[in-house]
Amino acid sequence: MDIIVLKPSATEEDLRHIVKKLESRGLKANISKGTERIVIGVIGDTSKITEEEEDALRVMTGIEEVMRILKPYKLASRDFRAEDTVINVREKIIGGKKIHVIAGPCAVENKTMLMNIAEKVREAGASFIRGGAYKPRTSPYSFQGLGEEGLQYLAEAREKTGLPVVTEIMDPRDIEVILKYTDIVQIGARNMQNFRLLLEVGSCDKPVLLKRGLSATIKEWLMAAEYVMSRGNQQVILCERGIRTFETATRNTLDLSAVPVLKQLTHLPVVVDPSHGVGKWDLVAPMAKASVAAGADGLLIEVHTNPEEAMSDGEQSLKPGQFKKLMEELKLIAAAVGREI
Amino acid sequence: MDIIVLKPSATEEDLRHIVKKLESRGLKANISKGTERIVIGVIGDTSKITEEEEDALRVMTGIEEVMRILKPYKLASRDFRAEDTVINVREKIIGGKKIHVIAGPCAVENKTMLMNIAEKVREAGASFIRGGAYKPRTSPYSFQGLGEEGLQYLAEAREKTGLPVVTEIMDPRDIEVILKYTDIVQIGARNMQNFRLLLEVGSCDKPVLLKRGLSATIKEWLMAAEYVMSRGNQQVILCERGIRTFETATRNTLDLSAVPVLKQLTHLPVVVDPSHGVGKWDLVAPMAKASVAAGADGLLIEVHTNPEEAMSDGEQSLKPGQFKKLMEELKLIAAAVGREI
Amino acid sequence: MDIIVLKPSATEEDLRHIVKKLESRGLKANISKGTERIVIGVIGDTSKITEEEEDALRVMTGIEEVMRILKPYKLASRDFRAEDTVINVREKIIGGKKIHVIAGPCAVENKTMLMNIAEKVREAGASFIRGGAYKPRTSPYSFQGLGEEGLQYLAEAREKTGLPVVTEIMDPRDIEVILKYTDIVQIGARNMQNFRLLLEVGSCDKPVLLKRGLSATIKEWLMAAEYVMSRGNQQVILCERGIRTFETATRNTLDLSAVPVLKQLTHLPVVVDPSHGVGKWDLVAPMAKASVAAGADGLLIEVHTNPEEAMSDGEQSLKPGQFKKLMEELKLIAAAVGREI
Amino acid sequence: MDIIVLKPSATEEDLRHIVKKLESRGLKANISKGTERIVIGVIGDTSKITEEEEDALRVMTGIEEVMRILKPYKLASRDFRAEDTVINVREKIIGGKKIHVIAGPCAVENKTMLMNIAEKVREAGASFIRGGAYKPRTSPYSFQGLGEEGLQYLAEAREKTGLPVVTEIMDPRDIEVILKYTDIVQIGARNMQNFRLLLEVGSCDKPVLLKRGLSATIKEWLMAAEYVMSRGNQQVILCERGIRTFETATRNTLDLSAVPVLKQLTHLPVVVDPSHGVGKWDLVAPMAKASVAAGADGLLIEVHTNPEEAMSDGEQSLKPGQFKKLMEELKLIAAAVGREI
Repeated sequence: MDIIVLKPSATEEDLRHIVKKLESRGLKANISKGTERIVIGVIGDTSKITEEEEDALRVMTGIEEVMRILKPYKLASRDFRAEDTVINVREKIIGGKKIHVIAGPCAVENKTMLMNIAEKVREAGASFIRGGAYKPRTSPYSFQGLGEEGLQYLAEAREKTGLPVVTEIMDPRDIEVILKYTDIVQIGARNMQNFRLLLEVGSCDKPVLLKRGLSATIKEWLMAAEYVMSRGNQQVILCERGIRTFETATRNTLDLSAVPVLKQLTHLPVVVDPSHGVGKWDLVAPMAKASVAAGADGLLIEVHTNPEEAMSDGEQSLKPGQFKKLMEELKLIAAAVGREI
Repeated sequence: MDIIVLKPSATEEDLRHIVKKLESRGLKANISKGTERIVIGVIGDTSKITEEEEDALRVMTGIEEVMRILKPYKLASRDFRAEDTVINVREKIIGGKKIHVIAGPCAVENKTMLMNIAEKVREAGASFIRGGAYKPRTSPYSFQGLGEEGLQYLAEAREKTGLPVVTEIMDPRDIEVILKYTDIVQIGARNMQNFRLLLEVGSCDKPVLLKRGLSATIKEWLMAAEYVMSRGNQQVILCERGIRTFETATRNTLDLSAVPVLKQLTHLPVVVDPSHGVGKWDLVAPMAKASVAAGADGLLIEVHTNPEEAMSDGEQSLKPGQFKKLMEELKLIAAAVGREI
Repeated sequence: MDIIVLKPSATEEDLRHIVKKLESRGLKANISKGTERIVIGVIGDTSKITEEEEDALRVMTGIEEVMRILKPYKLASRDFRAEDTVINVREKIIGGKKIHVIAGPCAVENKTMLMNIAEKVREAGASFIRGGAYKPRTSPYSFQGLGEEGLQYLAEAREKTGLPVVTEIMDPRDIEVILKYTDIVQIGARNMQNFRLLLEVGSCDKPVLLKRGLSATIKEWLMAAEYVMSRGNQQVILCERGIRTFETATRNTLDLSAVPVLKQLTHLPVVVDPSHGVGKWDLVAPMAKASVAAGADGLLIEVHTNPEEAMSDGEQSLKPGQFKKLMEELKLIAAAVGREI
Repeated sequence: MDIIVLKPSATEEDLRHIVKKLESRGLKANISKGTERIVIGVIGDTSKITEEEEDALRVMTGIEEVMRILKPYKLASRDFRAEDTVINVREKIIGGKKIHVIAGPCAVENKTMLMNIAEKVREAGASFIRGGAYKPRTSPYSFQGLGEEGLQYLAEAREKTGLPVVTEIMDPRDIEVILKYTDIVQIGARNMQNFRLLLEVGSCDKPVLLKRGLSATIKEWLMAAEYVMSRGNQQVILCERGIRTFETATRNTLDLSAVPVLKQLTHLPVVVDPSHGVGKWDLVAPMAKASVAAGADGLLIEVHTNPEEAMSDGEQSLKPGQFKKLMEELKLIAAAVGREI
């Protein structure tokens, strides 16, 4: 259902023209004449009308505003599905009582380093290993990832530690090779509106971890989830990772209120990446705790054995000892909100 | 200390002119010639040079950039004072182990309502009563507060419940009447850079609760604290209340990473106002918990016995029963981070 | 008129309760039952209901959203007054065909400098002299202005050059002294929501130049104008001066689209301050030209005879020669849009 | 060259460790000891060090800040190439005295409509025809474009009118089919950091029109251009199309100051898309004029013969008559800034 507000200057002729246009699309107009404005309630199956067609109404003479009442996403909506979506990855249940921690280096740099980190984060209680084999870098001169070699190391790390693998896809042409190795496919912030990539992962049968775009609204983010789900893949995990603001003290501004907002709007699980959210290792622990307190279903945390030498994001990585200490602290917070970790 | 970066096109003549200018201000230039750029380290007491004088350097021929190394605030800085500032208000210690909750209605509407709310929040464990007698409203046609009458009710509520009072000042001309009744003077977000008001409260002997401006950077916020402190009043409490972003699902975006960032940069206590931060009552509880987990020293929470009829901010107010439940939950989180409430 | 959208879960009981509440306020409910949502059109004189009362509706059980249809400002609205407001300041007509340029230093630093600049900008074609005697500075340690001495110099500059004076007020306690000397009272960006100051200048009989707040929406800006106008002073000039974004290449982001948007929404004249908008002198000229092309009724431009030594904003000030050249160029643009300068 | 600022608490041991690390990378440390801070100027070929390696320095004990002095882009920089890049597309020279207007519908909807619009915009003076065959839509349920059929219509429109074609690529897998038909390949705002797509168009021999990302900084935008150029394709045209801010009166906030900023930082041509920038047809004309006044080398303007029925972006499209009128007005502005159109 939509609401159309007429301008004070709108004529009876304008009104007739608008009503006719609505009727030509199989809709009915419910007209309310107030003291200052005429308002039309559009009744009928407006879901068949695209947002773009609604936008086009705005150019009709006499129309001041067109307000949408229904959310543009459906499959992702709590209205569509009331109970929480729960995703099972190799017997690890995301979206249930247990909070899962996905830990590992930003980029897979070499085998020894990855094995070492994987072992350490498993010991500390992480449930998943993460690491990038294809890296979206702002500079073409930066390390772009090891490619399939990196994926192989991740699979070996899984074999050794039992931790399922999360890794990022950047290009629809990589879908096959990535699916061969990973357990969860990650869509990075910069690709949240790479619609072709969304359709591609929407056709696969592995869960998708969908990061929020750098300046995406929650509505746009859910529309990106809808893209994936519209192709049949209902296993979407949303990941808050900070949005862009004017503040420069942190890399991004971690929007933790997105967690309870999403819990109202959608049935999908929500995780938080405090490492990218703040961009500085010594702010990660308090924000990880705050994420759990806010109701997150999981965390992504960057861990590196030697941040000084990291080929990517060293600045925001925890050392294994710091990560272990954080996991202990998180257990207390999880218990305080009736969860476990 | 400052760093001056020269343009690749800068001439020896430009360099000489810049060095002379620095020397005329009692500073020394340490010149490093790199392969691509010449860089000047400005040595001496740059604190005597205002930011504006530094800015003016930028217009000199041959200068590409002037980078400041020292923070522009001093008294507010952790460098200036390493230990945490602790503020004692009628035996309630802000900035120590105990987390204090400041609760009450947005605006003082009448005596009965205020007494009722004050009693309820005290029972639930709040340490302070808050309420506005002078209200900054975006519309001149909205309720502007009861003025001194409202202050009197607040003082009566304190008498009855023992809770110290927090209330807002909007105009330097109100300082005397407000100090007569309040225990803590609040500077609202819209007045964070009302410099005259800052100087006025800087000369008083009561603690100042300084809210972050709607789109203030953390640096600007600390400069506002510096304004207050420069007049002698060292008792400043910083209050994060959300910043403006493009997101519309919440009233503001609560920047919880500001809490640990401030803990590094300043010795002043930091509290969070989740009610204004999110603007919707059903998001207040998770964000209050997240605030405590992130390390906040206190919370401001709006409570109203009848939000439907509130004359201001009803949308974001908790009812006493909801507030009581939240206080119970917060105790668990506080314990989990080694604090109490 | 307002629109209330019910939740899918709203009951008949909820609906009855809402209708009763509306009727208790003298309003009528026009109910439209769509296939997915029930929508209530609120009919009657909703202008008597404050935004805050509307907000409070949101907490009622069963309500998903309350959408406002009428703009919250009236006197400032184009609906209220269709023809352009024209302001006459000592025979200079702001808001007519002629575009006025208000030029001068950021701060009045001393008499010689001010006289010199005033003479130069008059020669180049400026219509007004500007200069701050009370300066809002982010640091308490920066130059705060000469106070009344500065105002006297401005008045002397007017006497000598015939240029009317524009200067800023920061504190309601300064109103009398400022009105004694100035022709237009400026409200700075940081005070756009200093509501007491707005009421104060709303009671005076001189035009008010109201700068847009650092992160104010156009709606909030017009509400600030409404504050001034609600006290009787209809002579408000709006001044776009850049908003805060994530971009750091410029001091602010000059929102020139605000000019044509305001021309639709309000009858008040609109001027642009490209100097603060970009913060760098070598970007001022192109943005001044763009402002005129976008339809601005005037410009504020900072001019300083010796920017290197300016006590404030040297970085963004033009030298008299640069200003003169710009005025020549602006004449061509003004002519191209059917205006003169 | 980089600047490293040490913490006040940094020890001699920390300093030695840092210097050693720099030397291990073939760099030299120039140490300046100020009264409050020690600063290290890093001398040597820092261009060999990636931003990520610099970031990693930040985690070393004793380091407060690492400041970069050199811009991270090279090929795109004005330092690298002082004279303006000029791009020749079928004898139309972009980046010279003549301002080119690229006009057409948002999406190619059918052949008749496209031919009609192409004819009209050519008559009015446009130099290029634009239209999307592959459309990035925020909803998976919206019209996604005609695909190759749409490209064929564009080629036919070129044949009929002589106007070269600009169309968007969304997926690296479409590169061949798009190059078969288009003259300029457009990268949309949502793909500005789709790095694989950037590399793909960087290997082709047709000019690339690179739109600014929704919340991209100018630096990130130039890094995206650098991605394209690093593969050999130097023919990049930058297109400002509005950034995301908190303002909701316009679809985006058109950042016209980006035009003169880019003219300083890069040698690449800069065009502006006011249609997307403001999102409302009745704001397009003033912003198009402002763009030309600010120094733009070209404009993208959406034109549709029947905006009410447009399948995309009808709200912001001009009708042919409006476009024709605008072209007349733009001629005057272009002449006023010494250009032609």
